[in-house]
Amino acid sequence: MVIVGGGFAGLGCAQRLADHEDVAVTLIDRNNHHQFQPLLYQVATSQLAPADVAHSLRGVFPGKENVDVKLADIAAVDPASRSVTSTDGEQWSGDALVVAAGSQPNFFGTPGAAEHSFPLYSLDDATRLRSRILGLLEQADRDPTLIDRGALNFVIVGGGPTGVEVAGAIADMIAVTVPAEYRDLDASTAHIYLLDYGDELLKPFSDKAHDYVAKVLADKGVEVRLGTGVKEVASGHAVLSDGAVLPTRCVVWGGGIKAAPVAADCDLAQGRGGRIDVSPDLTLADSRGVYVVGDVANIPGPDGTSLPQLGSVALQSGIWAADNIVADFRGKPRKPFAYRDKGIMAMIGRGAAIAAVGKRHHEIHGELAHMAWLGVHAELMTGTRARIEAFVDWAWDGFTRTGGPHVLDRTAAAAIDWDDDNEAVAGAARAGDPASR
Amino acid sequence: MVIVGGGFAGLGCAQRLADHEDVAVTLIDRNNHHQFQPLLYQVATSQLAPADVAHSLRGVFPGKENVDVKLADIAAVDPASRSVTSTDGEQWSGDALVVAAGSQPNFFGTPGAAEHSFPLYSLDDATRLRSRILGLLEQADRDPTLIDRGALNFVIVGGGPTGVEVAGAIADMIAVTVPAEYRDLDASTAHIYLLDYGDELLKPFSDKAHDYVAKVLADKGVEVRLGTGVKEVASGHAVLSDGAVLPTRCVVWGGGIKAAPVAADCDLAQGRGGRIDVSPDLTLADSRGVYVVGDVANIPGPDGTSLPQLGSVALQSGIWAADNIVADFRGKPRKPFAYRDKGIMAMIGRGAAIAAVGKRHHEIHGELAHMAWLGVHAELMTGTRARIEAFVDWAWDGFTRTGGPHVLDRTAAAAIDWDDDNEAVAGAARAGDPASR
Repeated sequence: MVIVGGGFAGLGCAQRLADHEDVAVTLIDRNNHHQFQPLLYQVATSQLAPADVAHSLRGVFPGKENVDVKLADIAAVDPASRSVTSTDGEQWSGDALVVAAGSQPNFFGTPGAAEHSFPLYSLDDATRLRSRILGLLEQADRDPTLIDRGALNFVIVGGGPTGVEVAGAIADMIAVTVPAEYRDLDASTAHIYLLDYGDELLKPFSDKAHDYVAKVLADKGVEVRLGTGVKEVASGHAVLSDGAVLPTRCVVWGGGIKAAPVAADCDLAQGRGGRIDVSPDLTLADSRGVYVVGDVANIPGPDGTSLPQLGSVALQSGIWAADNIVADFRGKPRKPFAYRDKGIMAMIGRGAAIAAVGKRHHEIHGELAHMAWLGVHAELMTGTRARIEAFVDWAWDGFTRTGGPHVLDRTAAAAIDWDDDNEAVAGAARAGDPASR
Repeated sequence: MVIVGGGFAGLGCAQRLADHEDVAVTLIDRNNHHQFQPLLYQVATSQLAPADVAHSLRGVFPGKENVDVKLADIAAVDPASRSVTSTDGEQWSGDALVVAAGSQPNFFGTPGAAEHSFPLYSLDDATRLRSRILGLLEQADRDPTLIDRGALNFVIVGGGPTGVEVAGAIADMIAVTVPAEYRDLDASTAHIYLLDYGDELLKPFSDKAHDYVAKVLADKGVEVRLGTGVKEVASGHAVLSDGAVLPTRCVVWGGGIKAAPVAADCDLAQGRGGRIDVSPDLTLADSRGVYVVGDVANIPGPDGTSLPQLGSVALQSGIWAADNIVADFRGKPRKPFAYRDKGIMAMIGRGAAIAAVGKRHHEIHGELAHMAWLGVHAELMTGTRARIEAFVDWAWDGFTRTGGPHVLDRTAAAAIDWDDDNEAVAGAARAGDPASR
């Protein structure tokens, strides 16, 4: 059987099936490693090194003769023949096919966002953003006039967990790293804007949690703008929905995701965000042995809505699909997916987190939530190695407070072109800076 | 005062001066991190992650108000004014100037070597080589016909420590990783060639050590060819000095280094390998307050020869220059550099190393040498953080034996173009493969 995608869903499925020696599994991914997405923001802000959140897919299955890993980019899925075809023309098929292709950033057609903003969905995204942040600090340190041109303005689009976590982490990074390491930079000249079209950050949480988040971010100096989005991103500025022009070289896109491109390409019924509609047992209607799981799937929830695109839904649906596949092979009935909601949580920065735990979403915050966050994520981590190293990094980081792996890709820093924005905008930008209004 | 270069020499100098609060130091490097060069081959072979061997330069000096770090690429050095100019036109000068610009690979004019071979001198080099090795394993796993076209032929040029260490590490990687993780690959189809024009590997060691190295490499299956070099490197093959054409997509260049380009550009007296001649006290003749240290300097040795380009020479000369600078400032005499030879050593692979320790180069090998190697390198490591993490990695690696940070840069893997070598060569290559003669 064939699994497309080595994220939480695909890897969870493959791991479950690895114990069934009579099931031959081919796991296909475009990367040779699993990316631990919940921690990508820590790579972007130099708290973790890339290797801490990436785990070799082949390394997950030592000694498992029945699991094979292939590095390929899947371009087409054919449910009728349960086959997939890579961009370079190779084909795989099997008794069962699991599509766990994940998702991609959704720019909602915002002009310039795809070209100029920094999404945070893959390890490449995280290292790109890290190099941009460090490059801006280095350049502003050498030429403080760049600060007036937005070198230390960070604009984060979207007030969900990604946006809140990135905003908090950038604020911590600037508060801690700049005074300690950049002698000629004034940390108070940095501005971190967190934008959301809605009326609350972290919407699914309670009002009390919203107050807590607002307070923590305000303490960190993050400037939160609710009811505000971005209507255009350029290389040197962002235009907000209220018309303000903000000079910036760093727009982080946490504005939403949509299903992976393969969903649209294979001509199947799609729900919200382009996700492929599946039956409660995670199979594709009118097909035999085709499962769709994780972010790419539109999975019915308990009350008729769709389950959210979360790591825990992905992991659980992948494992469930594995069990249904084994049931199929054994001639037993498939079971409808029952999502076990362990809660939702977000880190707002160093030592500050909120978590809504368990079915009834009992809320906790502060240090206890921080520990819960660590625990849940350690559990999600597939590799013991990655777990140990990430904790060494964390522990060390908490101890030294300045010691992250600040490795800047030299070419990426050089790639910031300060002559590519028109002077009119750069000049007007200062006056139009919402921060000064 | 100004220091150009954050390698062992420049960083050693800056660290020594950091304790003199009345000396203001500007440390300039093209990277924002120090690269621990002796371990780059472990990054290239997925034993260490890049962050393990890179340490933020700014992070080395927490709380040191007198040390400033700037990210810049130095294009010109003017000894008369003790000033340096960056590629983007900024200038720095001071009472003292330390040039510690390091070295670069020396291809000795070998056609195609600069374009197609993989040197191992910087962190970028190491991650490029890592992606190439992993990319070849992935591609050969998917398409075994590529093995006949050289996908698993690794050609290492140069039998010094770099060449020997890379050859041993690639052999270990293939012996351990391929059977464990690449189900469809046959490790015995891989060939690792180690070439050297001379008549011995690791020339400075004794005959007994040479026998040991030869035995260890033979046990690992490395094919050593002495009296043999490479006369041309192309994208899909290497032409050896004996005329043999070897199909390969991975030629590792350990064939020598020369002084950094700035040495040739600043019109100073140069010795072997383009190194800048310095007086015994590490100053430049006919200048005031200009020091040249580390690999870029041609430092007189005790017996009239030049000191070798080693990490320990660089570190010690940098520290020595700092002491002479302080002496200058205090109106005291400078002292001639006295190199304390702690020995030379090389790792030949997992658990096998040789070391010639102390002034009389008492030789040890095997596990004891391995420990000595670890100890010396741990001592050279500037950052406690990097030290701890590297040891976690090592310990973990020794425990699991397959668990390195095999993170493949996807774009780098895709960059291997199998259509770019002419068919005649690819066809002829098999017959001309020296391994089959």
